[in-house]
Amino acid sequence: MSMDTTHTSPLEYLGGIASQLGYCLQDEKLAFHLDDQDELKHLRQCFHVPKIKDIPTTDQSLVNEEDECVYFCGNSLGLLPKTVKTYIDEELDKWAKMGVHGHFTGKRPWALCDECIVDLMATIVGARKEEVALMNGLSVNLHLQMLSFYKPTKERYKILLEAKAFPSDHYAVESQIRLNGLDVGKSMMVLSPRKGEDNLRTEDILSVIEKEGDSIAVILFSGVQYYTGQLFDMEKITEAGHKKGCFVGFDLAHAVGNVELHLHDWGVDFACWCSYKYLNSGAGGLAGAFLHEKHSSTIKPSLIGWWGHDLKTRFKMENHLELTPGINGFRISNPPILLVCSLHASLEIFNQTSMEALRKKSILLTGYLEHLIKYYFSKSTEEPHKPYADILTPSNIKERGCQLSLTFSLPIKAVFEELEKRGVVCDMREPNGLRIAPVPLYNTFHDVYRFIKTLGEAIAAVEKRSINLCQ
Amino acid sequence: MSMDTTHTSPLEYLGGIASQLGYCLQDEKLAFHLDDQDELKHLRQCFHVPKIKDIPTTDQSLVNEEDECVYFCGNSLGLLPKTVKTYIDEELDKWAKMGVHGHFTGKRPWALCDECIVDLMATIVGARKEEVALMNGLSVNLHLQMLSFYKPTKERYKILLEAKAFPSDHYAVESQIRLNGLDVGKSMMVLSPRKGEDNLRTEDILSVIEKEGDSIAVILFSGVQYYTGQLFDMEKITEAGHKKGCFVGFDLAHAVGNVELHLHDWGVDFACWCSYKYLNSGAGGLAGAFLHEKHSSTIKPSLIGWWGHDLKTRFKMENHLELTPGINGFRISNPPILLVCSLHASLEIFNQTSMEALRKKSILLTGYLEHLIKYYFSKSTEEPHKPYADILTPSNIKERGCQLSLTFSLPIKAVFEELEKRGVVCDMREPNGLRIAPVPLYNTFHDVYRFIKTLGEAIAAVEKRSINLCQ
Ligand SMILES: Cc1ncc(COP(=O)(O)O)c(C=O)c1O
Ligand SMILES: Cc1ncc(COP(=O)(O)O)c(C=O)c1O
Repeated sequence: MSMDTTHTSPLEYLGGIASQLGYCLQDEKLAFHLDDQDELKHLRQCFHVPKIKDIPTTDQSLVNEEDECVYFCGNSLGLLPKTVKTYIDEELDKWAKMGVHGHFTGKRPWALCDECIVDLMATIVGARKEEVALMNGLSVNLHLQMLSFYKPTKERYKILLEAKAFPSDHYAVESQIRLNGLDVGKSMMVLSPRKGEDNLRTEDILSVIEKEGDSIAVILFSGVQYYTGQLFDMEKITEAGHKKGCFVGFDLAHAVGNVELHLHDWGVDFACWCSYKYLNSGAGGLAGAFLHEKHSSTIKPSLIGWWGHDLKTRFKMENHLELTPGINGFRISNPPILLVCSLHASLEIFNQTSMEALRKKSILLTGYLEHLIKYYFSKSTEEPHKPYADILTPSNIKERGCQLSLTFSLPIKAVFEELEKRGVVCDMREPNGLRIAPVPLYNTFHDVYRFIKTLGEAIAAVEKRSINLCQ
Repeated sequence: MSMDTTHTSPLEYLGGIASQLGYCLQDEKLAFHLDDQDELKHLRQCFHVPKIKDIPTTDQSLVNEEDECVYFCGNSLGLLPKTVKTYIDEELDKWAKMGVHGHFTGKRPWALCDECIVDLMATIVGARKEEVALMNGLSVNLHLQMLSFYKPTKERYKILLEAKAFPSDHYAVESQIRLNGLDVGKSMMVLSPRKGEDNLRTEDILSVIEKEGDSIAVILFSGVQYYTGQLFDMEKITEAGHKKGCFVGFDLAHAVGNVELHLHDWGVDFACWCSYKYLNSGAGGLAGAFLHEKHSSTIKPSLIGWWGHDLKTRFKMENHLELTPGINGFRISNPPILLVCSLHASLEIFNQTSMEALRKKSILLTGYLEHLIKYYFSKSTEEPHKPYADILTPSNIKERGCQLSLTFSLPIKAVFEELEKRGVVCDMREPNGLRIAPVPLYNTFHDVYRFIKTLGEAIAAVEKRSINLCQ
């Protein structure tokens, strides 16, 4: 299965296959066929896929408990790679056997363990190894980078970001502005979609940068918007920002491991990401940070710790700082081996394929989901009372990753609950969005098929609930 | 075995026992007796104690390989608690079975996992639960706290610290001063021991504070000095600082789990610590931070993330900050469950006893070590060519924790190597110190006895090496 995404839409492509086989797009057999032909299907075996019976929200009377759940929540917390346990056991074993000697012994010498896996990470974000560090949590890294990039002057003091940025980013920007003694109202510049629209238009982003760029110090966008699933044109935003002399950084929480990234080639100044979503490292996993090579000797960390000191002389403890150039100088504390283990396990799975291949499958998988949602759950002029779902996420495949965000004509909480009872794991975000993320690394076309079927049942159940209520 | 440390020196106490039994202080039998009477001896069973054969530096021809090593390196990296594996497996199992639902399910709901163990942590540092947070690495926490406490003014702009502070603390102070646009030379005030002395005298620390306090914004000391093992009088330093209007904070890396701490009662303003040393959480384990209750609504974090937002409304994602009061508002990113597991396992062991009981044993254990070092390895006027060891650490038990730092008349690297060949695990710090830490939680009096015997052999081997070299 391979597809030239530049010339064919996923729907055309899937339609082509279906008609070749004499199926229609809604046939379960098509899902089976697509899974069968999927060159990445073996990767699902690298993960523990939860069974419906173990999901705490399951209503046993409604499901076949032995089935695997439909796990569409990799945008929030990725599944457990099977080798995590082995890798952790290796390090526990080393710890048990040799204590402190583990710092410089074995497969992942603890004192260097972040560096052991950084090349695997760099590949995924399209960076050179020296441009990436693994450390802290995402929001911590965002702050560390903003401290170095946001140096407001009288003329250039604003930070441009989305009006509905993730709270951490919003608070990070607010607090960075305050730390500089500036007024948030004047320095925080937020961008909203046009009235009646759900997503920001690239043209609008670029034109704001063009117009206001001279007063903007830093442009901070997400790569993929957490709520709507919109994928921003990072290359163009970076280019536009640079033209006006702004620094451009990205929060890649929902982009990394989801879409193709070329941070180096795009010339992005800085970026940071977490690893517990599409990178499957477990709750609170080790975060990443990128600093472009071009800044490696000019942009220095503001907050310095011993781990930023050059390894060669770090343990001489002489208190004369020899700062490691680039992002590695931003490391403050020594790295957590247990978090490296889980991330290592996951990155090795990514390394069995490529983001390009994953993205190709992802476009089909999400395209298939989109088609079925539209087919079954569109607003109908003929049946105005029929419940329907809207897709917030852009339909242009270049403007989205794997996630689709849905709203419903029915109360969203009820729909979500009914899905949860039936073995679907997805997530609801306030105020009104259901985030559905078929992840190419471990989800199948048949997962999508089952989701759609279950969504139909869930909607029917919600309708029934409200009819019962009215009677 | 219990001892009133206020009235008896450890040596008198041990001497009393020895003479009751008709032993002398150097007898192996005394070590066995002391271990036998040790009320905390069962706690060693809670840890994996490495065998000599698994220590990579061992010379097999010199040791009984099946013996357990003499692990005197808990000051650098604590041993592995046996339940760590179980706790991690519990969380991996939950992750495998229910994915994202682990955030609010089970024994350690991931979204709250740091809070699940914070009371165990608070007890150990003498704090209220609300005064402690578990997050990040130590040096990161130090920076986060300094950003809030170091607000230099024209009159009050200095930071007072030890001249030989741990590099991270040194760099943290330098970079905080620079971040405020000030001159390091003028604002960083470092305190050295008197000429010819190894340790700072409390009277000298207090008199500097008394004299210079009006220009000092923050006093930052370690609780226990990493190199010399000196335990500072945190209560008096805090009191003196407060009298002059300074904030007083401590880096407790080498103090936590080692000596008794009463952060709340002492009125300490802030403190931070790592957990991989005496707290046995593994390399890069989760760090802690303390903010005194009195500051809970006045001292605010400078760098804010979503995890500082009040849990009640955190997931509404409305971007109107409702800051959690106190240290919990300083949390930036969501907590790492894997690191919580290992720390949890260790804190539960501490919880089987008390810091008071551990400290009582520690005073005897280190007192015993001190006696034997002095007995066997003191400088001798009668034999001026006999190699000797000096103890840098104060001999006053109130001025030290469990660690003794030694220097030698022989090349330290050679002594260290010969110890390592013979199954002793301790650590050497540049330029010239051997740090020996008998940890009351898992070390025995017989460990001390064996260490002394091995040190004798090591010294003899080094002498032989140099004689061979000269011939
Ligand atoms: C006294 C002291 N402070 C700070 C640190 C640095 O700790 P981290 O790498 O956990 O930030 C250490 C580490 O050994 C230390 O001994
Ligand atoms: C877009 C985005 N940014 C930041 C964060 C916060 O991450 P952390 O708690 O790892 O700092 C998240 C977490 O979901 C996120 O989705």
